[in-house]
Amino acid sequence: MAKQAADLPLPALTLDPAAARPLHRQIYFGIRAAILAGCMKAGERLPASRRLAQALGVSRNTVLAAFEQLRAEGYIEGRIGAGSFVPCHLPDEAPLAGPGGPRRDPGRPARPAPAGRQPSARAQALARGAEPGPAARAFLPGLPELELFPFQDWARLLARRWRRPRRDFLVGAGAGGDPALRQAIAGYLASARAVVCEPGQVIITAGAQQALDLTARVLIDPGDLAWVEEPGYRPLSAVLTAAGAVLRPVPVDGEGLALPRGPDQPPPRLIAVAPSHQYPLGVTMSLPRRLALLDFARQAGSFILEDDYDSEFRYAGRPLAALQGLDDDRRVIYLGTFSKVMFPGLRLGYLVAPPDLVDSFLALRALIDAHPSSIAQAALADFIEDGHLAGHIRRMRQLYGERQALLIDFLQARLAGALQLAPAEAGMHLVADLAAGLDDQRLSQQARAAGVEAPALSGYFQGRPERTGLLLGYAGVGIAEMRRASEILARVVTSYRSAPSASPAA
Amino acid sequence: MAKQAADLPLPALTLDPAAARPLHRQIYFGIRAAILAGCMKAGERLPASRRLAQALGVSRNTVLAAFEQLRAEGYIEGRIGAGSFVPCHLPDEAPLAGPGGPRRDPGRPARPAPAGRQPSARAQALARGAEPGPAARAFLPGLPELELFPFQDWARLLARRWRRPRRDFLVGAGAGGDPALRQAIAGYLASARAVVCEPGQVIITAGAQQALDLTARVLIDPGDLAWVEEPGYRPLSAVLTAAGAVLRPVPVDGEGLALPRGPDQPPPRLIAVAPSHQYPLGVTMSLPRRLALLDFARQAGSFILEDDYDSEFRYAGRPLAALQGLDDDRRVIYLGTFSKVMFPGLRLGYLVAPPDLVDSFLALRALIDAHPSSIAQAALADFIEDGHLAGHIRRMRQLYGERQALLIDFLQARLAGALQLAPAEAGMHLVADLAAGLDDQRLSQQARAAGVEAPALSGYFQGRPERTGLLLGYAGVGIAEMRRASEILARVVTSYRSAPSASPAA
Repeated sequence: MAKQAADLPLPALTLDPAAARPLHRQIYFGIRAAILAGCMKAGERLPASRRLAQALGVSRNTVLAAFEQLRAEGYIEGRIGAGSFVPCHLPDEAPLAGPGGPRRDPGRPARPAPAGRQPSARAQALARGAEPGPAARAFLPGLPELELFPFQDWARLLARRWRRPRRDFLVGAGAGGDPALRQAIAGYLASARAVVCEPGQVIITAGAQQALDLTARVLIDPGDLAWVEEPGYRPLSAVLTAAGAVLRPVPVDGEGLALPRGPDQPPPRLIAVAPSHQYPLGVTMSLPRRLALLDFARQAGSFILEDDYDSEFRYAGRPLAALQGLDDDRRVIYLGTFSKVMFPGLRLGYLVAPPDLVDSFLALRALIDAHPSSIAQAALADFIEDGHLAGHIRRMRQLYGERQALLIDFLQARLAGALQLAPAEAGMHLVADLAAGLDDQRLSQQARAAGVEAPALSGYFQGRPERTGLLLGYAGVGIAEMRRASEILARVVTSYRSAPSASPAA
Repeated sequence: MAKQAADLPLPALTLDPAAARPLHRQIYFGIRAAILAGCMKAGERLPASRRLAQALGVSRNTVLAAFEQLRAEGYIEGRIGAGSFVPCHLPDEAPLAGPGGPRRDPGRPARPAPAGRQPSARAQALARGAEPGPAARAFLPGLPELELFPFQDWARLLARRWRRPRRDFLVGAGAGGDPALRQAIAGYLASARAVVCEPGQVIITAGAQQALDLTARVLIDPGDLAWVEEPGYRPLSAVLTAAGAVLRPVPVDGEGLALPRGPDQPPPRLIAVAPSHQYPLGVTMSLPRRLALLDFARQAGSFILEDDYDSEFRYAGRPLAALQGLDDDRRVIYLGTFSKVMFPGLRLGYLVAPPDLVDSFLALRALIDAHPSSIAQAALADFIEDGHLAGHIRRMRQLYGERQALLIDFLQARLAGALQLAPAEAGMHLVADLAAGLDDQRLSQQARAAGVEAPALSGYFQGRPERTGLLLGYAGVGIAEMRRASEILARVVTSYRSAPSASPAA
């Protein structure tokens, strides 16, 4: 006989009509907890849905929905009308250790790792390069202003596309991405960056990092030589190494990457540069250097990876056209990102592949993760076409220019003798040179401990650092936070200089 | 002197107040087109913004916004108040071929590829495996019903999260994904699949395919042996090969993967299986086989990749708990996807890593594409927690069960002598056995040409096919389309059988 609902032992079944979790889910969790806790035994019959609904003061459909899910998951057996029972074997009990065996205790300490459980050499090499990530606070380089993004417009465009989505968004566009977005990006790059491409050469990626990984895997075979900038962007070196490349760091001077001299240079397979705004130094590659680099690549048979990660933010001087647009030999893979002009959580970027390599990029992309998510692509194409992106970039360019000047003011007022800062024509961060005797790595660690990110320039060198300093991002830092963080940094530097153990060996 | 707006040669500047493109964008494009077309020459002064606004019947701010963008992109020079001029060098002209050089014609046929432009051996191997993708139509296996998804709820949840987004969504959650979504998935897997895990072991991926690629790269070093199911899922073999694995196809029988006998088996580094519903055969691995596989892996020191891609759709019989929940030695990497229970364009999936490998997975994930996009994650966590996903799965389970029965009816009525179909307990497709003399590859090609997808079973074998047949997906096929596609398939088979050249050599 079915028990009365009132005397059913369901201590967990307390319904809260105001909770975010729907009532049928509350009933489902309550009954499941009672079964798993042993309050209801195998073979025991559940109350009829109608009586339970009455006892709980909910509609019968609500109870039926809960029963249906319990039945689908194997917590109860039987059919509506014939009554429901707790089965002999529960889905997350019986199989775990066989009939009668002990249940695994999730709180049990993990066993020591058996031998042979190490990840691949590739993964181990990557893990060695991994560091505790910096916090998204002043002065993290590359972090854009997040409060002033037009989220009302963004949410409206998202909802408009998803209330009645096109079928191709549901199935998923091709590996290259949504055609409308590829077209919008090709148009933007042609007008803003003098990039020469058809929309079919634009491949949407999950941010610039995936574009780097894709390029490395499409072009590099184990043992291939890759030239990278010294100092340079470390995650780029990591993906090249993971693809099997042998890296040669090539120094960057005031005009950008300085091509190694001498006729006996082994030709690199790939030369990776950020000519618009070198990371971390902030140098813009000169036009003669650009032409020489393209000429060298043509003669050496090398490809060029052009990382154009923040070229939208230029405050003075004329932008130079992208290398890609100067390249008549289709050796440049160009990449950009929406992480800086919108926000990093979006995870959308793009690369422009030479026409004869497009199919290889698409084939690899399809295997890595099929195709980019449709969710943001459609809204982003609208956002670009309707002029929202251009407007936001224009406003941010103005704001970031003001913030750069303010950061220089703030730090010169507080740290004139210790840090030296010069205005930069472009980008989202400055490089502060340090007075003699200041170790940038230790200073950076102390700043982080005090709540301020200021990455050490020497950490971006693969070889012996030629220069030290601190990277200071200003784009995403409001005035109040900038003042606060500047004061913290000033305190850190002052206490560093007055500490008796300020020797590098400490 | 500035020209009057009325006699300014701007043929492209026709404003349409009803167009989706804002007026300032229309002005921007019109003036840019006039400059690029040579209607306005270098050094020529633009009309004053106030006069142009009057002539066009728009506000002055609208014209100023257009001018600001033209100035930012280098199409005009000068300052507000002092007048604007067309500069001597235009952004997408001068740099392309040096001063005075010819502009590149984008329509020019591509040069023949120079030597040394081949992609990496890895990318070439992948491209060889690439095929023209099937169309998203009947009877493509794995395609869910797309019309009945609750898009109103989905769009509402998306918009709610993005009107006032949390700061961590903007910066991007960690490489593992949004903590709330990881927790929701861990809870779902514990109750529905008897998976034993903490939320920290759940790693959000861009669909199941990225989970496969991640697992391959974390575990496989070049030369490592990997066992895959024969027949099996081809994109899995492709990512394993790309990571350097040597593949051994292991036959699947009616109980799932049949472990090779004999004591002298070289131990594999990885064994990849789909025990809930093997792809393509649809077999569920028996409990004795599951236990034997875990035992073997423990003794051989192998890892197991458990692909649980469509276990939510089970129509008869009791679901068996996931291998992961049976594994007391933490050798199973479990993966699942939202592509089947929601829609493929979403590109969200997950893997559950053994605790001691989580850091390796996260380090690699961070380098591949930093972290998953925030855009859909927050809404998806809400969608799960509010019970929408469970409700949708419940409705689709019912619907797909009905559609499976209907497909069997339709095809038995039309093709009883040629195709043999048996009901399946789970999944989204059936395997039709073919009468003697029917070549599945040729039949599949002819069906595709006639507008119906019916992949050939023999194409899923790496070695000599032990069985032929057609895969027929039914989940995403409505009644009318199912009838139409069944009739087309019947015609294709009939015409194949009556053709005089029906020999396999043709």
